[in-house]
Amino acid sequence: MVNRQFANAVHVMTSLALLKNKKTSDISLQMNSEQLAASANTNAVVIRRLICSLTHAGLIQTTRGKSGGVSLAKDPNDITLNDIYVALELSETISHSDKPVHKDCPTSCSMHQMMTAISEGADRALGKYLQSQKLSDLIKKIK
Amino acid sequence: MVNRQFANAVHVMTSLALLKNKKTSDISLQMNSEQLAASANTNAVVIRRLICSLTHAGLIQTTRGKSGGVSLAKDPNDITLNDIYVALELSETISHSDKPVHKDCPTSCSMHQMMTAISEGADRALGKYLQSQKLSDLIKKIK
Repeated sequence: MVNRQFANAVHVMTSLALLKNKKTSDISLQMNSEQLAASANTNAVVIRRLICSLTHAGLIQTTRGKSGGVSLAKDPNDITLNDIYVALELSETISHSDKPVHKDCPTSCSMHQMMTAISEGADRALGKYLQSQKLSDLIKKIK
Repeated sequence: MVNRQFANAVHVMTSLALLKNKKTSDISLQMNSEQLAASANTNAVVIRRLICSLTHAGLIQTTRGKSGGVSLAKDPNDITLNDIYVALELSETISHSDKPVHKDCPTSCSMHQMMTAISEGADRALGKYLQSQKLSDLIKKIK
């Protein structure tokens, strides 16, 4: 199970995409970490960590200073859920086996390789789905 | 991330499939929870819990008594990784948002529904991949 980080990141990106959609350059339409934390019902430290990862991935940009804040760095049409997922550097969907090998057991000797292949296949399947989900489509669902 | 339960269950099912592949009705070719635990490098309590879930799902069967043990209930060709995944009743791949709603925020009001849809889509994508992986194919990779 992908942890709450992902849900919080989707929340942040959706909020920023809604702002971007207003098609204005008004700087007050940026949001700061406190506003994003209130919206996502979490604390600002969690949001600041997310902002760091999302900025590093080139998905958002930060304006410093008193009236500064965060805004999307790209058009919502050019951002997929997979971009957000990759930005967070979350662990694999299915954990591979990292246990010491029981050398007399053929299954044990092959498990690491087998589970790594399964884990990679699962990640590819999840990545493909997330790639198909654009931020621009998500915000159409906001009432 | 799907926890180690899944890797342990794949280990158990692979071991039993290798036995089944020997095409003999020799009852000594069943395995008990201690043998499976030694092979999977975990403890017998963990294995007994898995045996319970896998039996309940109709994937394995148990013969009681001194020489009893566990064996596959189906042909490895008729068991997929998705059957094993479903048997364990693991939580969803991507957790949906279950936070209290911030009523003044449109994003917050739509997050539960949005994340539920994403979570279901991710589970369908993972399920489709796991459905394509047969136990009979996995055991071909055991050296």
